[in-house]
This record gives sequence, C-alpha cells and structure tokens, in this order.
Amino acid sequence: MFRQEITMYQHEVKSLYRYKLIIEYDGTSFAGWQAQKNGLAIQTAIENALHLACQEKIRIHGAGRTDAGVHAFGQVAHCDVSKEWDPHRLAMAINFYIRERPIRIIKTIKMDPDFHARFSAKSRSYLYRILNRAAPPGLDINKVWHVPQKLNIELMQEAANLLVGIHDFSTFRAKGCQARSPVRQLISLLIEKQDDEIHFKFHAPSFLYHQVRNFVGTLSMVGQEKWSVQDFKTAFDAKSREKGGPTAPPEGLYFTKVHY
Amino acid sequence: MFRQEITMYQHEVKSLYRYKLIIEYDGTSFAGWQAQKNGLAIQTAIENALHLACQEKIRIHGAGRTDAGVHAFGQVAHCDVSKEWDPHRLAMAINFYIRERPIRIIKTIKMDPDFHARFSAKSRSYLYRILNRAAPPGLDINKVWHVPQKLNIELMQEAANLLVGIHDFSTFRAKGCQARSPVRQLISLLIEKQDDEIHFKFHAPSFLYHQVRNFVGTLSMVGQEKWSVQDFKTAFDAKSREKGGPTAPPEGLYFTKVHY
Repeated sequence: MFRQEITMYQHEVKSLYRYKLIIEYDGTSFAGWQAQKNGLAIQTAIENALHLACQEKIRIHGAGRTDAGVHAFGQVAHCDVSKEWDPHRLAMAINFYIRERPIRIIKTIKMDPDFHARFSAKSRSYLYRILNRAAPPGLDINKVWHVPQKLNIELMQEAANLLVGIHDFSTFRAKGCQARSPVRQLISLLIEKQDDEIHFKFHAPSFLYHQVRNFVGTLSMVGQEKWSVQDFKTAFDAKSREKGGPTAPPEGLYFTKVHY
Repeated sequence: MFRQEITMYQHEVKSLYRYKLIIEYDGTSFAGWQAQKNGLAIQTAIENALHLACQEKIRIHGAGRTDAGVHAFGQVAHCDVSKEWDPHRLAMAINFYIRERPIRIIKTIKMDPDFHARFSAKSRSYLYRILNRAAPPGLDINKVWHVPQKLNIELMQEAANLLVGIHDFSTFRAKGCQARSPVRQLISLLIEKQDDEIHFKFHAPSFLYHQVRNFVGTLSMVGQEKWSVQDFKTAFDAKSREKGGPTAPPEGLYFTKVHY
C-alpha cells in the first residue's frame, strides 16, 4: 500500500520540461517541414534525433510548415522532455545525432509549459531571394530563384505597397489552403537590391498557403514590366487565384524568424 | 600550286579571338582550380565545356589558382577561340555544357590579344567567412569555417592592421610556395560582423600560397584571446611559418574579384 502510494505520487510529480528550439535548415533534400508519405520531413528528422538524444519518443510542434525545398534560418518548434536538460547541451545532443543532415538547432531555451511554438507566435518573417542576372547560380544552386530578365525594383515596390495592411488575399492563396478566411494582415514588404540579388522581406502575423511564393511570382510580372502596377491592382482586387501571377519556386524562400 | 598558296594564306589570316571569362563556382566537389592527378579540376571542367561549345580544344588561363574546396564569385580566365562569338552567347553555350556542375560563366568579354588574365591583373580580392556561433552551419555547410568560440573582432582588426603595407610575409607562407620572394603588399584587410558571421575582406596585388588562410587562422588565435596582439606581432616579425598560427580551412574562402 505504502509502496503503491509512493509510485502514484512519483507519477503525479513527474513533470515535463518544455523547450523552444530555434532551427536552421537547407530544405533542398526534404519533403518539407511536416511528416509526409513520401520523403523525409524535417520534423521527422529532428524527432528521430531527439529520440536518440533523450531515449524517449518526443513530438515537436513547429511554428509554421514549410514546403519541400523551402529553407529556414529561424524556424521555431517546441517539445516536452521528461528529463531536465541544460538547454545548450540539449541543442548539442540533437545536433550530434542529426549531423549527417543539413539541419541544426541554433538555440534551445527552457520555456513555461504554456508556451506554444505556433499559437504563442505574434508574427512571422520570411525572406525571398531572386538571383537577377543572365547567368544561373554557380554558388547558390537551390538557394535562389534565378530570373534572367532584369526586374524593375521601383515598380515592384510600388505594387508591393498595395499589399500592406489587412486585405482579402484570395488572389495569392493556393488551392488546398486550410485557413478559414482569406483575410490576413501584411505588416511590411520591403524589396531590396543586394549585388546581383533582389531580396523580398515579408512580415505578417500569419500567412496563407503559398502566399509568399504567389506574392513574389506575381510581383515578378510587374518587375519584368509584363504587368503594370494597375494590372497588379486589378488582379489583387479580383480576389481570385486565377487572376494572379505564377507561384515562385520554393528554393528562393527562407523562414527567417518567429516573433513572440 | 595555286591551291596551296590559298591554303597557306588562309592559315596565316586565321586569327584567334581572345575572351575574358568571369567565373563563379562552388569549389566543394573539385580538386581545385588547376588540373590535378586526382579529382576533377575547375579549369578542366570549363575546358571540357568549351570543347563541346566551340568544337575545338581550348586552354584557359586563370588569374589565380584556388585550392580544393575554395569558392569563387569572380575568378577570371582568358581563352583564345578561332571563331568569333557574341560574348553573351559564348557564356550561355559554356553554361549549357557545364550545367550539371556548380560552375557558371557570369560574363564573357571580348579582349585585345595582349590581355592576360593573370599577368594583366593589377590586384585581387578575397573574402573569408567565419560562422561564429555555437551551432554548426545548417544552411552553409562547406561554405563557412565554423568557429564556436566567440571571436573578438576589435582585437583581430588591431592585429590585422599590422599586416597592411609591404612586408616579408614568411610567417604566413605555406611550404611549397613557388614565389621567389616572401615580400608582398597587402592593400587592405577589413573585418566585419554580419549577423552570426565574421567576414575578412582582403585586397592585394598578389598573394603567397595559403597566405589568406594563414592570415585568418593566425588572426583567429587573437580573436579567441589565446594570443595577444603583441604575440601576433612577435610571430609576424619572426618571419617563420612555424611561429604562425594554424591554416584556416578552405571552405570559408572565396576569390571575389580580379582588378585590371
């Protein structure tokens, strides 16, 4: 009886320690963030390493899903571990077991149990890189979208400014998007030239499925001066994906930061 | 007799057209710039593509050799082609035949026959990238040198300033260097922090064998505060490679520009 009580008591006080993981990855060789039928998911690769590091099955919960081929400097996930770890040692242990794959835990922070990587997030930042020169990439293969036609940055920024604010973004929402509403807020979209590259910096509380890639693909029509800014506005106002421009490929996209 | 004269005449006027190639490459999978016994050289890969594009055997002459694993944004080479090409089309043709390898001709320019990629060069620029954080790279594997110990940039810059000017650089010259003299001019060396990275920017008329990598390896001793700036100066003044610090690995090094 006494033994049983102790066992119960131990079971009850067995608490879980919640950790926030800040994650960098090269998405080229993965099926995307989330577990898929075909190909290895980034989430699964990290869970496998956590299993080896902690000797227990641990699920991780990401702040956002990234498609196959999309990269991250600052994806965030949380997980619950039954043993308390020094955060730096936990990161080192996961990095050891995942060392053969291009995924690294940049930082691990111990959190209160009410922290949730996805639901506690206030906003998210993405970067999209276009290599805008005649020659395809030699050094950044699979890391940029190569657009050989010269893009007019001023016109793209003028069109981009129309997107800032709270709008119905149906024109930029992929089929299969599971969000209930196409209305989202875009906090900012800055377009900057960096040597041969053009960088699109997005900041929003949340994004629709393929929203960033559809933004960039449609803005590239304006940059090539195939569409005027007015054409862009007409497409945006039509609230129909069919009126939008193409979807930019995944390899130029980086999940850069989650803001809490 | 008449036919023979015409043949001779044609042979004599058959001129060669000289082209300058600006080249970008990811050196990770190559044996270096120059033809080697083991592994594919970047020079050989470009010559093979030129052969296919021009239907003749063509040698290229680079502005500088890079070691196995070293990258380039702006290597320069020249070559002589018996047919006149539109420069942009020549670049496109080489890029087509080299497409399976991470090498690209960024630009091709028609030059006078006295232009020589190596001997006409006035100076050269290199970049060295250190990733200075606890976690190894996830996105830039083989593209940076990972140094987990925090580096003091101010101290490294103070030591670096001693290198600027005309000096005997024996302390930073690898065995096997074929240069007649260890005296070289260093025009500038700037050390800059860029997020988690430290960038070393070198500019000099020419460099000794492994000079940049020996500079960075030795400066990293100062950055880690294992050596004082005075220790660095003592090693420099000793004019002996044995007194210098370690050789930084090739993967952080980029040949960025040749100045003519």
